[in-house]
Amino acid sequence: MLKKINHIAIAVNNLEEASKFYQEVMGLTLSGVEVVPAQKTKVGFFKIGESNIELVQPSEPDSPLVKFLETKGQGIHHLCFEVDDVEAEVRAFLEKGATMVDQKPRPGAHHSKVAFVHPKSSSGVLIELCELSKDH
Amino acid sequence: MLKKINHIAIAVNNLEEASKFYQEVMGLTLSGVEVVPAQKTKVGFFKIGESNIELVQPSEPDSPLVKFLETKGQGIHHLCFEVDDVEAEVRAFLEKGATMVDQKPRPGAHHSKVAFVHPKSSSGVLIELCELSKDH
Repeated sequence: MLKKINHIAIAVNNLEEASKFYQEVMGLTLSGVEVVPAQKTKVGFFKIGESNIELVQPSEPDSPLVKFLETKGQGIHHLCFEVDDVEAEVRAFLEKGATMVDQKPRPGAHHSKVAFVHPKSSSGVLIELCELSKDH
Repeated sequence: MLKKINHIAIAVNNLEEASKFYQEVMGLTLSGVEVVPAQKTKVGFFKIGESNIELVQPSEPDSPLVKFLETKGQGIHHLCFEVDDVEAEVRAFLEKGATMVDQKPRPGAHHSKVAFVHPKSSSGVLIELCELSKDH
């Protein structure tokens, strides 16, 4: 069962530059910055209600995000829903015929477990399912 | 002040077709369908936590959404934040140098008042600010 929107990830060229708008105009607070080596990205987190806005920039020239920015430009990259049991969700999604990017969950930020649904199943939206660490 | 994410709008070619995934695979409940004549769209609402997913399809051949779908394809169209006083927010956004699509709020769905921020201010994301009707 999906519990809530955990975060909306926005691909940006420059985290520091993009953060200005979200801080100074939108009035949101930057609650942390984290480098995610597996994705070769640097992420800034802004809490809003029960969700987060995550601004994501490539941290290496060969980050997978570089190609996204080159072809699509800056903008929303994916939408993440929080679940209790991501393994069970992946099994259920596959049984119901969804096309998954990840056939099994893999490690995400903050010791979470995550799996991505392919946009062709979800009307062009890249969807992430995440199970937070119990220590979260 | 931004209170929460009110909704994420996803542009789709066919609401009925797109709803299947969100209902049958994601397990969300379609809470309503509304035609918005001013936008020439038909919208399906799915509640998730304190927010909503809105699937939006053109309801007329000359809907502004037709061009979006033709050039960008299906996918996330905009992100809406709920505020207490949208007029005050628009004034503050303009004073802080944001580029607004709407210099003044205009009527939205459910008797709300809304204003859009231009994506060039917000790293490529079309952002809507909405003030709900007091009768909501």
